[in-house]
Amino acid sequence: MRPLILVSNDDSYMARGVHALIDRLVEIGDVVAVCPQHPQSGQSMALTVNEPLRITPLPDYRGARMYHVSGTPVDCVKLAMHHILDRRPDIVVTGINHGSNSAVNVLYSGTMGAAMEGAAFGIPSVGFSLTDHAMDADFSPCLPAIDLLVKAILENGLPQDVCLNVNVPDVDFVPREMRLCMPCRGHWNDEYKEYTDPFGRKFYWLTGRFENLEPDNERTDEWALAHGMISVVPVSIERSADTCLDIDWLPAVLARYARLAAQATD
Amino acid sequence: MRPLILVSNDDSYMARGVHALIDRLVEIGDVVAVCPQHPQSGQSMALTVNEPLRITPLPDYRGARMYHVSGTPVDCVKLAMHHILDRRPDIVVTGINHGSNSAVNVLYSGTMGAAMEGAAFGIPSVGFSLTDHAMDADFSPCLPAIDLLVKAILENGLPQDVCLNVNVPDVDFVPREMRLCMPCRGHWNDEYKEYTDPFGRKFYWLTGRFENLEPDNERTDEWALAHGMISVVPVSIERSADTCLDIDWLPAVLARYARLAAQATD
Repeated sequence: MRPLILVSNDDSYMARGVHALIDRLVEIGDVVAVCPQHPQSGQSMALTVNEPLRITPLPDYRGARMYHVSGTPVDCVKLAMHHILDRRPDIVVTGINHGSNSAVNVLYSGTMGAAMEGAAFGIPSVGFSLTDHAMDADFSPCLPAIDLLVKAILENGLPQDVCLNVNVPDVDFVPREMRLCMPCRGHWNDEYKEYTDPFGRKFYWLTGRFENLEPDNERTDEWALAHGMISVVPVSIERSADTCLDIDWLPAVLARYARLAAQATD
Repeated sequence: MRPLILVSNDDSYMARGVHALIDRLVEIGDVVAVCPQHPQSGQSMALTVNEPLRITPLPDYRGARMYHVSGTPVDCVKLAMHHILDRRPDIVVTGINHGSNSAVNVLYSGTMGAAMEGAAFGIPSVGFSLTDHAMDADFSPCLPAIDLLVKAILENGLPQDVCLNVNVPDVDFVPREMRLCMPCRGHWNDEYKEYTDPFGRKFYWLTGRFENLEPDNERTDEWALAHGMISVVPVSIERSADTCLDIDWLPAVLARYARLAAQATD
């Protein structure tokens, strides 16, 4: 049996990036794509709780079954798992995102939110992004890496709770190197542009520039991308800070709480 | 100078939980509360990219400055940092959430999204939740723990990239114990209720029941809550899977990619 590949993204079912992804994946397995009806950039792992959701079948694309869902990327993966697919997918592949999901962007990315939701279902999952926001971006530099990584994940799996965040630099050649990276430390500055409406009231629109706090660190995804390489970052959805279970002041505070609570209830 | 405390939540500025939180925090420091205008449960770290945002000042509450923002919990924290606060807060405190954010819920929680955004700004951050969804829930069992933890965090700080996820059980007494926990492994089943609209079309609404995969593990947050204890789970926003940098098959695939790319460009 051919592997079953669940595809999603955050740029909506109409985005060129997801079509480029499907073009390649139909050569590897049976593809079902469940994508948001409307663009969902920056939706992280948001899910829809206060409204109903619709699933709409679309015409097949290159032999892939296509659907759109009236919600977020996470909604797409959840509804695919519960109401669209008739068997468990062998892999979840998301993207190709129009724009970088390197560094801190991974926290907000809807494309990576869908991949993390795949990991939450225990399915090996990977998200691909191209560092070019253009709607008509050329996704061909991504394709050899997609082919190789998807096949390797299908063959080998991934550790529990871990998915891969793959970013491809916006270059006009196939990158020569794909590199295992750490997410670059950094943050966004000047995050909002301020406007005044016709009634004199202010409003704000998200913008900003990324400040790289470790530009010379060759292990980061930003460094790899700046040097024309593809970055591969393992991302854990098990966000518990294992290493911090020894926050040194916490045991004393917990003990103090127990004493106070005992007094309060005596 | 009194500490500056930034408060946010996901249940909106009208929720009883945030008022209960502010009631206690104004005794500890100067409070500025920036909350969503509308309920934002399940918004994770979503941010608003395709629409403008408004900041609306509200009447003070118990001496706390109050604002609502027309976006997500993360939008609230970002706009507070860039356009509302005139100095850097000493701590970000979110909640009190109406409902549990234990186990896998932390991935989707808007309340914890706001706390993680605080951590992304490098500010010690903590989110509080009560395992009772009722709008008129009694938040008094949370208050001694909030008092103690907020003061301890102000005094000692938290490790970089780590915030705390504190859940309080829905009990009618002050819990006797507050315990350091791991997030419980588990997942949601039957996640959608299916309906048919008056035109014969199906639609879906998120629901489901949590399946605890380790009910006897005394180290988990679910176990603590089920036994009337408060759970404290450190959460890392540095989601990189350090321990997985040795995915054993990956180096060979990366090397293979380099060979293929060299051939393609030769």
